Amino acid sequence: MNLVITVDPRDGHRRATELTETDDSRLEAIAGQSSRAARWLSGLGRLGRADMLDTIAASLESRRADLVAAAVAETGLSHARLDQELTRAALQFRMFGDVLRDGAYVEAAIDHAADTPLGRGPDLRRMLVPLGPVAVFGASNFPFAFSVAGGDTASALAAGCPTVLKAHPSHPLTSHASAEAIASAVREVGGPEGVIAIVYGEQAGRSLVRHPAIRAAALTGSVGAARAIQAAIDGRPDPIPLYAELSSVNPIVVLPGAAADHGDQIAEGLFASFTASGGQLCTKPGLAFIPSDPGGDHLVDVLRARVASSGGAVLLNERIRDAYERQATAFERAGARVSARPQVDSGAGFTVAPTLLEVGLSGLTAEITDECFGPLLVVVRYRDVAELDAALATVPPSLTGSVHRATGDDHDVVRRLVDVLAARSGRVIFDGYPTGVRVSWAQHHGGPWPSTNAVHTSVGATSIRRFLRPLAWQDAPVWILPEELRDEYTAIPRRVDGRLESGM
Amino acid sequence: MNLVITVDPRDGHRRATELTETDDSRLEAIAGQSSRAARWLSGLGRLGRADMLDTIAASLESRRADLVAAAVAETGLSHARLDQELTRAALQFRMFGDVLRDGAYVEAAIDHAADTPLGRGPDLRRMLVPLGPVAVFGASNFPFAFSVAGGDTASALAAGCPTVLKAHPSHPLTSHASAEAIASAVREVGGPEGVIAIVYGEQAGRSLVRHPAIRAAALTGSVGAARAIQAAIDGRPDPIPLYAELSSVNPIVVLPGAAADHGDQIAEGLFASFTASGGQLCTKPGLAFIPSDPGGDHLVDVLRARVASSGGAVLLNERIRDAYERQATAFERAGARVSARPQVDSGAGFTVAPTLLEVGLSGLTAEITDECFGPLLVVVRYRDVAELDAALATVPPSLTGSVHRATGDDHDVVRRLVDVLAARSGRVIFDGYPTGVRVSWAQHHGGPWPSTNAVHTSVGATSIRRFLRPLAWQDAPVWILPEELRDEYTAIPRRVDGRLESGM
Repeated sequence: MNLVITVDPRDGHRRATELTETDDSRLEAIAGQSSRAARWLSGLGRLGRADMLDTIAASLESRRADLVAAAVAETGLSHARLDQELTRAALQFRMFGDVLRDGAYVEAAIDHAADTPLGRGPDLRRMLVPLGPVAVFGASNFPFAFSVAGGDTASALAAGCPTVLKAHPSHPLTSHASAEAIASAVREVGGPEGVIAIVYGEQAGRSLVRHPAIRAAALTGSVGAARAIQAAIDGRPDPIPLYAELSSVNPIVVLPGAAADHGDQIAEGLFASFTASGGQLCTKPGLAFIPSDPGGDHLVDVLRARVASSGGAVLLNERIRDAYERQATAFERAGARVSARPQVDSGAGFTVAPTLLEVGLSGLTAEITDECFGPLLVVVRYRDVAELDAALATVPPSLTGSVHRATGDDHDVVRRLVDVLAARSGRVIFDGYPTGVRVSWAQHHGGPWPSTNAVHTSVGATSIRRFLRPLAWQDAPVWILPEELRDEYTAIPRRVDGRLESGM
Repeated sequence: MNLVITVDPRDGHRRATELTETDDSRLEAIAGQSSRAARWLSGLGRLGRADMLDTIAASLESRRADLVAAAVAETGLSHARLDQELTRAALQFRMFGDVLRDGAYVEAAIDHAADTPLGRGPDLRRMLVPLGPVAVFGASNFPFAFSVAGGDTASALAAGCPTVLKAHPSHPLTSHASAEAIASAVREVGGPEGVIAIVYGEQAGRSLVRHPAIRAAALTGSVGAARAIQAAIDGRPDPIPLYAELSSVNPIVVLPGAAADHGDQIAEGLFASFTASGGQLCTKPGLAFIPSDPGGDHLVDVLRARVASSGGAVLLNERIRDAYERQATAFERAGARVSARPQVDSGAGFTVAPTLLEVGLSGLTAEITDECFGPLLVVVRYRDVAELDAALATVPPSLTGSVHRATGDDHDVVRRLVDVLAARSGRVIFDGYPTGVRVSWAQHHGGPWPSTNAVHTSVGATSIRRFLRPLAWQDAPVWILPEELRDEYTAIPRRVDGRLESGM
């Protein structure tokens, strides 16, 4: 059996772990456990699962020091960033506890039997129920919040779906430790094996999504990874949904008034946003449209100085480092000028130099609007706001689009720009930056292809919808109905005979 | 240009219409109109669209006589059935008017800026917005309610999505007249060309779903049709969702007590359900599990007599007629005995004999659990209720599963059966029949593959969700927000800072 390798991106040191790549017989055992765990999770009910999620959050926090240390060694991300990410992971489990207690997410609806224009209508009761075991592919760039202990896992478990993680090869030990933290919490609340499970290795990932027990898959990763997983799914006799959060350029438009009024601030904000976590965030701004005027010149000067005096960034793995350097070169070949790039010592690890490129609006080719994962920002200089609509329409759709305005800006101009951004993204940001995705009820982390392949979010309370399906009961006896669908149950919001009744 | 052909299934008479198959240049013009119409529909707002849907319902009803006559001549379905179907179509448009006025469907949520464990969180506001122009493939078996004037169109227009219909080749003139009825209503409320459009021909259907302007597709049809459309979609650079409602066997289990207590009634109900509309309903029961005991024998005797004395059924087209006869033969070759089949005069049209087949539980092979479109029911005789779970697990998942009980039936037995049916269907029916799908808020018309390919419904209020996507506004100025997301707006249910507030 192949041992799983872990690599420290700070010095490139590789070593074998005690973990092994998951073979077919182990996968079969996991699938069986997951199917049995599905019945247990469903039987646990909404409130039982809410308590389980709280217990998982506490378990993650109780192992904070070990988890963060493991992640620092496998990702090269800073202790402070990873410490905060663990807080976020715990917060996500607790938020889904709130979602479960609230109960509106099941979309309970009751239509009593009634006369209709088409004759007597039967009694119908509908709610969302768990899809069944779910495969989740961990992301390289968030070893906690988009990996084993991430939002996909939290929302799937909340929905009542056992979760089998495909560990990202960049952080197997962190993944293993996270799975142990969750499994221990599950045991604490009396749960069986299989509520959470983990597999290692590319082949295991493909076998996982082909397994009949698996009812949905979720991925945060590259378009290439999504295509490979989709190809595996296409080999099934029964298609299953793949919820994939992929590539995003996240354009930012700075209007002339904003550049003139607070160019220094924006330069600082842009710098922080494109270099945070080595620029390895799906919401990293990759393109900033800055006016070709004195305000814009000043903004770019400040930004250039900030980049020139910055240090190197350790990237997550060799593949990402190589892709970053390849892509920076490709952008330059396609006509982008290097505006700032400090000299950094790459050493033996995966350290790269942050890069600020500059191009005129007419030079904004398809090559340059590609996502570059890492600390690279392309500044696009424009002369006239009227040129922006057409230019933005050539940028691939993204998770986000941002606009920086000044107090006196023409509303019609802003509105037109925002219409273009809204048509091509899932979140429109005013006078801010796309990084730092708030975990809350109104969040949407999704967008038109290639930013995602689905009309769902992977962050926030409504991400639970991905792992649920509707089920209707017609003329059912009371004793067989889930309690949420019995007449006298009023603890959750429900739609009864077409009217929404808020829960108590 | 190829003229579109219409065929009368009652006598097989074929004639050319004045309609032509849609070529690429016409499709291009339609796509352009649809894109412009998308902006108009969105700007019309929820209440404006509700009025438009009411106007469409009235327009359909004002043309009732012509529409029904056209459909009778193209489908061979009865005047009474088609008259009721038109009522249903109008009802669907009006129901979505109610959905729009209620407004909960936009899932409005506001998180005000706040301190969080991860620092200051921005102001976030989320709601569902239209996906953009939608392609809808009309079904053969519902010339109104699942075709041009069907639920897909009603829910897409309600969502704010212009709709391009691919007319089903079995009823082009009905499709054309339906589109005219809708277009006339759209003009009445001041709408542009392109809110509703129609294309003819297989090639036009493929080109339609490949067109960049189209943002989603919906189909009620066969697995083969879905695969062909999906293959066309897979040729796009950007995937779009296909919502497909496909094949369904709709098993019915009659428990021994029910057969003994009211076998005559159930025989009558089964006969009506599997022969209604020539058995050409996606919810037609294809398999009935009847006990091998005196009660079951009596039930089957009554059913057999009912079938034997029935007349022929006109099927919708030659392809469906041929498939029906081929499949009946295949079932017999696979071991099903003919229990009853009247002699009928096929004539020059597409008339067939209703067929009752019978098989023992051990003879329930994969061939026999296939869907057969048309008036065919396979009675499966079982000796022991304990054998049913395993047998039902070999039946492909369906839109529905039904169970008939008696007053004294063991709850645990029923519960176990219902668990199996619920895992393999989207609607569980007690003491009733799957045909006659109520159009209401709590309806769910969907189920695991191959009954559908999505976790959404194609009937009922929540089917609107298929044509919407979430969009979030971060720190947006009030003047640019949709009114549903402004603080002071209270006309619809919204989630504000995590709490659901019911609308007024």
